[in-house]
Amino acid sequence: MTDWGLLDPGGADANGTDDDAVLAAMVDVERALLQTWGDLLDEFLDAQADALDEAALDRDDLREGVARDGVPVVRLVPALRAQLEAAGLSAERLHLGATSQDVVDSALMLVARDALLGARTALVGAGRGLGALADEHRSGFRIGRSLARHGEASTLGVLAAGWLDGVSSAIAAIDEATFPVQFGGAVGTGTAADAAAGRTTGADEVRAGLARRLGLADPGRAWHTERAPALAVAMTSATVVAALGRIAGDVTFLSREEIGEVRLAGGGGSSAMPHKQNPVDAVRITAAAVEAPALLQVVASAAVAGDERPAGRWHAEWSALRRLVRLAASASASAEQLVEATSFDADRAAVILAEAGPAGERPDRDVLAAASARIVDGALARFARTSAPTGPETRP
Amino acid sequence: MTDWGLLDPGGADANGTDDDAVLAAMVDVERALLQTWGDLLDEFLDAQADALDEAALDRDDLREGVARDGVPVVRLVPALRAQLEAAGLSAERLHLGATSQDVVDSALMLVARDALLGARTALVGAGRGLGALADEHRSGFRIGRSLARHGEASTLGVLAAGWLDGVSSAIAAIDEATFPVQFGGAVGTGTAADAAAGRTTGADEVRAGLARRLGLADPGRAWHTERAPALAVAMTSATVVAALGRIAGDVTFLSREEIGEVRLAGGGGSSAMPHKQNPVDAVRITAAAVEAPALLQVVASAAVAGDERPAGRWHAEWSALRRLVRLAASASASAEQLVEATSFDADRAAVILAEAGPAGERPDRDVLAAASARIVDGALARFARTSAPTGPETRP
Amino acid sequence: MTDWGLLDPGGADANGTDDDAVLAAMVDVERALLQTWGDLLDEFLDAQADALDEAALDRDDLREGVARDGVPVVRLVPALRAQLEAAGLSAERLHLGATSQDVVDSALMLVARDALLGARTALVGAGRGLGALADEHRSGFRIGRSLARHGEASTLGVLAAGWLDGVSSAIAAIDEATFPVQFGGAVGTGTAADAAAGRTTGADEVRAGLARRLGLADPGRAWHTERAPALAVAMTSATVVAALGRIAGDVTFLSREEIGEVRLAGGGGSSAMPHKQNPVDAVRITAAAVEAPALLQVVASAAVAGDERPAGRWHAEWSALRRLVRLAASASASAEQLVEATSFDADRAAVILAEAGPAGERPDRDVLAAASARIVDGALARFARTSAPTGPETRP
Amino acid sequence: MTDWGLLDPGGADANGTDDDAVLAAMVDVERALLQTWGDLLDEFLDAQADALDEAALDRDDLREGVARDGVPVVRLVPALRAQLEAAGLSAERLHLGATSQDVVDSALMLVARDALLGARTALVGAGRGLGALADEHRSGFRIGRSLARHGEASTLGVLAAGWLDGVSSAIAAIDEATFPVQFGGAVGTGTAADAAAGRTTGADEVRAGLARRLGLADPGRAWHTERAPALAVAMTSATVVAALGRIAGDVTFLSREEIGEVRLAGGGGSSAMPHKQNPVDAVRITAAAVEAPALLQVVASAAVAGDERPAGRWHAEWSALRRLVRLAASASASAEQLVEATSFDADRAAVILAEAGPAGERPDRDVLAAASARIVDGALARFARTSAPTGPETRP
Repeated sequence: MTDWGLLDPGGADANGTDDDAVLAAMVDVERALLQTWGDLLDEFLDAQADALDEAALDRDDLREGVARDGVPVVRLVPALRAQLEAAGLSAERLHLGATSQDVVDSALMLVARDALLGARTALVGAGRGLGALADEHRSGFRIGRSLARHGEASTLGVLAAGWLDGVSSAIAAIDEATFPVQFGGAVGTGTAADAAAGRTTGADEVRAGLARRLGLADPGRAWHTERAPALAVAMTSATVVAALGRIAGDVTFLSREEIGEVRLAGGGGSSAMPHKQNPVDAVRITAAAVEAPALLQVVASAAVAGDERPAGRWHAEWSALRRLVRLAASASASAEQLVEATSFDADRAAVILAEAGPAGERPDRDVLAAASARIVDGALARFARTSAPTGPETRP
Repeated sequence: MTDWGLLDPGGADANGTDDDAVLAAMVDVERALLQTWGDLLDEFLDAQADALDEAALDRDDLREGVARDGVPVVRLVPALRAQLEAAGLSAERLHLGATSQDVVDSALMLVARDALLGARTALVGAGRGLGALADEHRSGFRIGRSLARHGEASTLGVLAAGWLDGVSSAIAAIDEATFPVQFGGAVGTGTAADAAAGRTTGADEVRAGLARRLGLADPGRAWHTERAPALAVAMTSATVVAALGRIAGDVTFLSREEIGEVRLAGGGGSSAMPHKQNPVDAVRITAAAVEAPALLQVVASAAVAGDERPAGRWHAEWSALRRLVRLAASASASAEQLVEATSFDADRAAVILAEAGPAGERPDRDVLAAASARIVDGALARFARTSAPTGPETRP
Repeated sequence: MTDWGLLDPGGADANGTDDDAVLAAMVDVERALLQTWGDLLDEFLDAQADALDEAALDRDDLREGVARDGVPVVRLVPALRAQLEAAGLSAERLHLGATSQDVVDSALMLVARDALLGARTALVGAGRGLGALADEHRSGFRIGRSLARHGEASTLGVLAAGWLDGVSSAIAAIDEATFPVQFGGAVGTGTAADAAAGRTTGADEVRAGLARRLGLADPGRAWHTERAPALAVAMTSATVVAALGRIAGDVTFLSREEIGEVRLAGGGGSSAMPHKQNPVDAVRITAAAVEAPALLQVVASAAVAGDERPAGRWHAEWSALRRLVRLAASASASAEQLVEATSFDADRAAVILAEAGPAGERPDRDVLAAASARIVDGALARFARTSAPTGPETRP
Repeated sequence: MTDWGLLDPGGADANGTDDDAVLAAMVDVERALLQTWGDLLDEFLDAQADALDEAALDRDDLREGVARDGVPVVRLVPALRAQLEAAGLSAERLHLGATSQDVVDSALMLVARDALLGARTALVGAGRGLGALADEHRSGFRIGRSLARHGEASTLGVLAAGWLDGVSSAIAAIDEATFPVQFGGAVGTGTAADAAAGRTTGADEVRAGLARRLGLADPGRAWHTERAPALAVAMTSATVVAALGRIAGDVTFLSREEIGEVRLAGGGGSSAMPHKQNPVDAVRITAAAVEAPALLQVVASAAVAGDERPAGRWHAEWSALRRLVRLAASASASAEQLVEATSFDADRAAVILAEAGPAGERPDRDVLAAASARIVDGALARFARTSAPTGPETRP
C-alpha cells in the first residue's frame, strides 16, 4: 500500500509529514530516550543512539505490525534492538520505561512542530507580500461586497489588509502553540522509569530530558488520555488553513474574468482546454480548507479518550492530526506562491466601482481614503508585531 | 417555531444562551452603542439607552425578519426605533455607523463570554471535587486499562488526577479566550462612524468605547470576514466539552455494575425499568461530546468567509457557535453535578486488581505509591495555578 | 429555555419539526399504541386514545424531565396517565410493552416522514420551475466555467437542466427513504408485549399494528442500536440539502452584478445599506448546506451505538436528526421560492460569451444546440419519471 | 512523499484502493475510451489500448502534475501519448472528447465498486459467523444493558442477531449502490464527442460504451457538478463502517476481563506489556468508525459544487471518497477476522445475569426464550435474503 500523492492537491507539499518523516521522528524519540538514560544512569549510550538507522528499517514489516498490533512501535522496537545487536551493542536501555504511546505521540509532536514552523516561515513570506499589496493600494478604490451584492466602496488596500489580518492570526496561532513531549510508560504513571532510575523522580527526569533533547515542551505530566495538547495542535493547524482558505476563495473569485480586480500570474493546465490558466494555488488551498474542518472533528472526537489508553480513538487521531499539519504546511506554501502571483488591477476595480451606481457612491472618498490608510497601517503594524522573530526562549 | 428543550439533554442548561438571551445581548449592544455615541458626540443619550426594552419586542416579527432578510437586525432596528419614538425620544443616533454584523457578532461574543465564564465557575467546582478525590485516593490501587485490557496497576488517585488535568486544561482554554467586540459598518471600513464623528478616528473610538462598555476586548480592527476570533471561541468551547466528555465516559464505564470502581449517587429514571438509576449527568455530557466536534466543524467551515460578508457561511456560524457555548456551559454544569455524585469504591478496585493476575502485579507497590503521590500533587498544583481567580485586568 | 428562530435563517421553516410537533408525534405514538392494544386484546381503548391531549402537557415539566432522566418520556408517561385518570379512564394499557426509545424513535420517524414528504412537494414545485427555465433556454448560449475560469460555451438550458438533475436526485432520495416504526421494549426483545398479549407473536403484532396505524414501515425487528434506519433518513436529508446548496451557490454567483446571467426578483433588506436586495432564499439554503454535513456526521457517529441502548450517543442523535430533516424541509421551501424568483438574462449571457474570446468560440454552435436539446430533454424526462406521484402502495 | 501505512490501522487493508490502484483505474478508463471510440469510429484501436502501461508511468512526474495542475490527468495524458508514440501507434484517439474529470470520477467509481464488492464478500463471511453464533446461543441468557446499566434479561442469540442485522444493513446498502461512469467533456455537454462521432448522439454513445466496457452504470447524463452519485457511494461506505463500528465497540466491551461474555482468540502485542492480547481487529474497526463520519462530511460539503467544475471542492472529494471506501473495505475485512475470533462464554453470561439481581429476573425465561428464537430466526432470514448472490443483471 502506498499513497504517493496522486489524489492529493490539497496536501501536495508533504515534505516532512510523510510516513518516512514520522518514522524518522519515532527513531529520534528512541534515540533521545537512549541519550537521556545515558545521562541519568551515567552510562555512555551515544553509540547506541548513533547506531539506530531509520533508513534501514523494513517498511513492509512495520506496516504489517500496524495491522497485527494496531500500532507500529511493537515491531519497531525489536527491529531497532536487532540493529543494536548487529552492531555489537547492548540493547538493554532501548525503549526503557516507555510505551508505544510515548513514541507515537512525541514523534507526531516533532512532526507537527517542524511542519508548523515551516508553515510560519511561508506565512511570513505571504504576509510580506500582502503587506506590500495593502500598502501600495491603500487608495485603490473598489466596491465592497456583502451577501454577494455590491455594498459600498472600500479599497484594495483594505482587502489586502484583511487577508493580512488572517495571516497574522494564523502566525499568532502557531506562536501560541505548544508541542509537549509524551512520557508515561504503560499506563501513564511512569513507574518503570522510576524503577529503572532508582528514584521517585525518574519519570519526571526522563520526560524533562526527552523534552530538552527533542526541543519539545515538558508538560509536567503524561497526557495519554488527556488529549487537550493534541487537540490544541489540531486547532492551530485548522486555524491556519481556514485563514488561508478565505484568502484563496477571495482570490479565486476576484480573479474571475468578469471581475478581474485580481490578476494571477501563471496557472495550471487543463486536459481538455489548452487555453486555460487555472488558479491552482488557490484550488489547492481551497481543497485543504474543505477537508481540514473534518479532520479537526476527528481529533476532537478522539479527544474523548477512555481508560488509560483508548481502544481505537487514539488510533484514529494519528492520521487526522498528521494530515492537518500537512494541510497547514501545504496550504501555507501554496499561499506564499499565490501571493507572489497576485497583483491588483486598480483600473478594473475603478471601472466596477463606477458601474456599481449608488452602491459605489458611498462613502465620501476622502473619508474612505483616511479609513483605508488607518486600516492598512493597523494591519501592517499587527503583522509586524506578530511576525517578529520569536526568540528561542519562548519556543519549546 | 419553538424548540424548548424536548430533545436536548446535551444542552439542557440553556440559561443565558437561548434566543431571548441573545436578543437581550443584541439590545445591549445597541444600548452601548447609543451611550458610546453620547460620549463621542457629547450628547445625552442615556435616556434612549434606557428606553430600549428587549422584553417588549415582538418575537414573531423578528423571526419573520430572519426568514425575510436572513438576519434579525434588519427588523430589530426599526422596532427599537419605534420604542424610542413612542417614548418621545430621538432615534437619530440608534444603530449609528453600525451594520447587522456588528450587532450579531458582538451579541454572540457577549453570550459566549458569559456562558464560558459560567462554565469556568462550574469547572472550578468540579475540579475541587476531583482534587479531593485524587487527594484521598492516592494510594487506592487499581488496575490501569489500555486498549480495553488490563494493563498494569495504577491508583484511583492517578485516575482522578487525570480527570483533573482535563478540567485544568478546560479552565486554561477559557482563560486564554478573547471575546472581541465587532464594529466595522457596512463593509468593515467604519467610514459611517468616521463621518458621524467628524474625525478619522471615529470608528476606532466607537469600537473602543463599545468594548469598554460591554466588557469585550477591543481587537483593533473589524473581523467581519477574518473569523479567527469566532473560530477561537468555538475551539475553546469544544476543548471544554471534550475534556468533560472523557471524564463522563470513564465514569460511565467505571460505574457499571461489573466494574464498580466508581459509585454514583442518584440517577435518572426509566419508562420501562423502574429499578434503574441511569447515569444521566454523564449521559448528558456524552451527548454533548458527540455533537460538539461537528459544531466546531461548522464554525471552521464558516470561517472560510468571502467578500466583505459572505452569503450564507456567516449565517451558518451563529447557531453553531451559540450551541457550542451552550454545550460547554451545560456540560460544565453537568460535570459539577457528576463529580458531586461520584465516589470511589477502593475495595472493589482492590478486588479487581487482585483478580487481574500478572497484569496487576506490576509495578512494585512502593514505587507506584510514590509515583501516584507525585502525579496527584502535580495535578493539584496545576489546578491551583489554573483555577486561581483571574483579575479583571486580564479579562476583557 | 426557548429557541424561537432568532439565529436560524437556515432552518427558518420549522413548521412540523419544532418541539411541539415532536411532542405531538410522541403522543400520536402512545395513542396508536393504545389502539393497537385495543385490537390485540379486544378491548375498547379509543376513549383513552382520544383523551390524550398533547396541548395540555406541561412543557416546563417535560423539559425538567429531559434534564433529570435524560429522556422526555419518563415524565411524559405519568403526565398522560394523569390525563386518563382525570377523565375517569383506566391507564393500564398506556405505554404497555414499550420503552422510551420506542416512543422517541417512532415519533422522530413520523416527523421526518412528514417533513420530507413536505420537502418533496416543494422540490417538485422547484423542479417544474427549473424544467420550464431549461426548456425555454435550451439555445441560450453562455460560457461554461471550470476552476473559476471560462471553459467553453454551454447553454442556460444545460445550466437549468443540471440544477433539475439535482432536484430529481433529491426527490429520488426521498422516494427511496423508509421510515420504520420502533418497537422493542426495555432491551429490544419485545417480551413485555409478548407477555401482555399472551402469545409469542405479541411484539410482532404490536409493531405491525403500530406501523399500520402510524403509516410507518414495519422493519420486522427492533433497531434500538442498529441505527442504519436513522442514518439512512439523515443521509436522505443531507442529499436534499446538498443538491439545493449547489443550486443556491450557482444562483448566488450568477446573480452578482458583474455576472448577471441570473436575475432574482425581490430580496432581503439590509440594516446599513437600504439600496441592497440580498439573495436571501439562496443565503438561507447556503447556510443550511454549510451546516447539514456536520449534522450528518453526528448521526453517523451516533450510529456506533452500544449495549442495548447507548449512554449518550442515542441522545445526541435526536436533535441532529430532527434538525437535518428541518433543514431539508426548510431548504426545499426556500428553493421553491428561489426558483420562482429566478429568471435568466440571455442577452447578458451572450455578452459574456462574446467577451470570453477563444474560450467562448468552442464548440460549434450547431453541435452545442443539439447537445443542449438532448441534455435538457434528458433532464426533463428524468424529472418527469422521478416526480410522478408515488402511489400509497409504495409508501409506508 | 509516500504514506505507506505507518499511521493507519483503520485503513490497513488498502489493497485495491491505493494510489497505484487508482492510477491503474485511470488508465483502464483511457483504455476503455480508446476501445469505445474504436467501436464508434469503426477503427481498430485495441493495439493502442493494449500499449498503455500504467506500471511504466513515472509517479514522480504525475505527483508534480497534481501540484502544478491540481489534477493528475493533465500530465497523465501526454505520458500515455508518449507510450503510444514510442510503440509507433497513433495517439489521435487518446482521451478523445474527455476531460480530466471524466477520467478521475470514472476511475474512482471503479475503485469504489471493486472495494465495496470486496467488502460485501467479507461482510457475507462475517454474517455467516454471526448467524452461527446467534443460532447456537438463542437460549444463552444474559443481561441486557441500557444507558450503561443492567436493564433486563436478553440472550446471546439476540446480541449476535442484532450484530447480524447491522451486517445485513451494510450488505443491503452495498447492493443498493450504483457506480456510474462519468463522461461529459470540458463543461459537461459532451460536444467534443458529438463532433468527433459526427452525430448528435456521440457523447451518449461513448458514455454508454464506456459504462459497458468498464462495468459501470450509465447514468444517462454527466454529473460533473451534480454530485449525488459520489455522495451516495460515500454514504454507502459510511453505513458499512458504522454498522461494523457498533459490533466492534460491543465486542471490545464484552470481551473486557470484568465482563467476559465474549472471548476473543488471538490479539495484538504491546511494546510495554508483553502479557497483553489486544483486541486489534476491533481497534482497527473502531479507528475507522471514528474517522468515517468526518470523511462523509467532506464529501457532503464537496457536493455543494459550483460552476461547471468547482475550484477546490471537487479536488477535496477525491481523497475523502477514496479513503471512505478503503475504510469500508478494511473494516469489513477486519470484521470477518473479528467474528472468526469471537466466541460467547455462556457460563459467564449466566453468572453476570444471576448477579444482576432484580434487573435480571425479568422477564419470564420461557417468554424470553421464545422471543429470542423469533428474533434470531428473523435476523437469519433477513441475512439469507440480503446476502443471496445478486445476479449480474442487477449489478452494473
